[in-house]
Amino acid sequence: MIKTMNKTHLNINEIQKIVSIDLLAVNNIIIDNIGNEVPLINDLSKHILASGGKRIRPMITLLTSCICNYNGKNHLFLAACIEFIHTATLLHDDVIDESKMRRGLATANDIFGNKASVLVGDFLFSRAFEIMVANGSKQILEILSKASSTIAQGEVLQLTTINDCNTTKELYMKIIKRKTASLFAAAAEISAVLSEEKLEIQNSLKIYGEKLGIAFQLVDDALDYAGTSALDKKIGDDFREGKITLPLIISIEKATPEEKCFWTRTIENLEQSSDDLNKAIELINKYDGINATLRIAKKYSIEAIKSLDIFPKSEAKLALESIAIIAVDRKK
Amino acid sequence: MIKTMNKTHLNINEIQKIVSIDLLAVNNIIIDNIGNEVPLINDLSKHILASGGKRIRPMITLLTSCICNYNGKNHLFLAACIEFIHTATLLHDDVIDESKMRRGLATANDIFGNKASVLVGDFLFSRAFEIMVANGSKQILEILSKASSTIAQGEVLQLTTINDCNTTKELYMKIIKRKTASLFAAAAEISAVLSEEKLEIQNSLKIYGEKLGIAFQLVDDALDYAGTSALDKKIGDDFREGKITLPLIISIEKATPEEKCFWTRTIENLEQSSDDLNKAIELINKYDGINATLRIAKKYSIEAIKSLDIFPKSEAKLALESIAIIAVDRKK
Repeated sequence: MIKTMNKTHLNINEIQKIVSIDLLAVNNIIIDNIGNEVPLINDLSKHILASGGKRIRPMITLLTSCICNYNGKNHLFLAACIEFIHTATLLHDDVIDESKMRRGLATANDIFGNKASVLVGDFLFSRAFEIMVANGSKQILEILSKASSTIAQGEVLQLTTINDCNTTKELYMKIIKRKTASLFAAAAEISAVLSEEKLEIQNSLKIYGEKLGIAFQLVDDALDYAGTSALDKKIGDDFREGKITLPLIISIEKATPEEKCFWTRTIENLEQSSDDLNKAIELINKYDGINATLRIAKKYSIEAIKSLDIFPKSEAKLALESIAIIAVDRKK
Repeated sequence: MIKTMNKTHLNINEIQKIVSIDLLAVNNIIIDNIGNEVPLINDLSKHILASGGKRIRPMITLLTSCICNYNGKNHLFLAACIEFIHTATLLHDDVIDESKMRRGLATANDIFGNKASVLVGDFLFSRAFEIMVANGSKQILEILSKASSTIAQGEVLQLTTINDCNTTKELYMKIIKRKTASLFAAAAEISAVLSEEKLEIQNSLKIYGEKLGIAFQLVDDALDYAGTSALDKKIGDDFREGKITLPLIISIEKATPEEKCFWTRTIENLEQSSDDLNKAIELINKYDGINATLRIAKKYSIEAIKSLDIFPKSEAKLALESIAIIAVDRKK
């Protein structure tokens, strides 16, 4: 029995260590596939792909392959695909949101321009398809292409709710399920398909990914009103963009008429002065918006862990459970 | 023997008539696949997909399927894919180029905003993959995913030559081969693969598409300095953006020192006054830039037609030959 088996959960370094050889192989596949005679593709891809992302999504593919006792090499290529699709959406997101910073570094659009970010995003996206066609079965291609179009639908849906204070919790949940959870779900499900596991296992891993993805996004959205300036991610991005997330929805729902006016001015009309973010945080805390969001995230995290019950105890299982715990316990 | 067989070539209406039933089916597949519960996806997709594109690319898939005597239904879905990929690149192109008009109508980005155009482009692109996974073999998926990443590479390469008066003919040809001809080539090649034709036929159709695509783009680039304001497409778009195309390259190559200064100011520095487009056209005509470009286009058109020699005489063959003739004879 390995040493880690007796611990309640692993930290991110311990998790990475479990799949370190695979992660290295995935990194090499990523580097091989952005190597290109067009220097701008190289430079921009390297900037975003080497900028210290935690590789959570490919790690899920690696660990779920492990839990399914997969012993081929295709999971490495599919994990790289997942990271490419994720990176392509990040590039386009940063253009859409006009973001200046990501992971404590200047965004690709800030350095290379919006045009290059859109086109290199397209490149990474199509390269992901090239890789998956070479390494995936028809069912895997169906899962990944469906996940991609679901992400895009979620992103468009989110765009239509920007600045709209009447956005409901239900619509918000639908958006995050699509824009974030669908890729997490696909990242986990494909491992079971690759390993030719029965439908029940495929479904359990899909649910694990989906619940984890929802928890992950909920925490991201809570942290945007709860972080400190010492953290990589500046707080208040969502507020400044008028993006409607759960902490906001909770507070708007309970707002007094006067508070409603504040939200209309700052979120709907995007008329914001320097002190408005503090006021927004104050109002969100008044109605417990951050904690309420984190509590829901916790519920999804527990459901994610529960969906792994079908698997016997193993190091990979502990790692997947730990990811679900870390997703809701993190401070950034 | 059908009536049209004795004509030298067919006009676009006659060509469309040959595949009219198939084209209708493709249109229905397109409509079915943009039908979405997210209204913005519907509206934006309909705006661009119903805005009177000539459906040249899907028509190539339909006609090449016909010439290969394909008698299934998959070619209809793949033709829709080709149009989706093309439309996704148009949406992103218009964002990149900050275009206001396309096909005589306001661009999607002008009406719906850049953000929606980027995201709906992503949606159409991933929807294209979903459709092709459901209807294509592994080889077809390889061809189409490679074409997509080649297009993106061509677009990025083009971006790096913007405002660069030192761009060579060779680099320009590489760009248009990638950004335009690769999709034409794929549109034709997949029909031979779908029909399980031997490699020689697959290759002939691929070459047909590639040569046609190059001719098509060369003419587009010539017309941007040769059209009249009565035409749908306003002339001078490329000039205003500082996009380097063949008519320009030819004229810059032969420019006097004074003319070189003009190009540096207008193209490299994008310092343009109202009369500069006329001056540019004058300089391009001085060195026969438009006709020289059209002559090269004609050469590619002839090569495209020549690559069809392998096929016996038929209505579909005549239509494909006619498309190559129309591509270089058109005035818009």
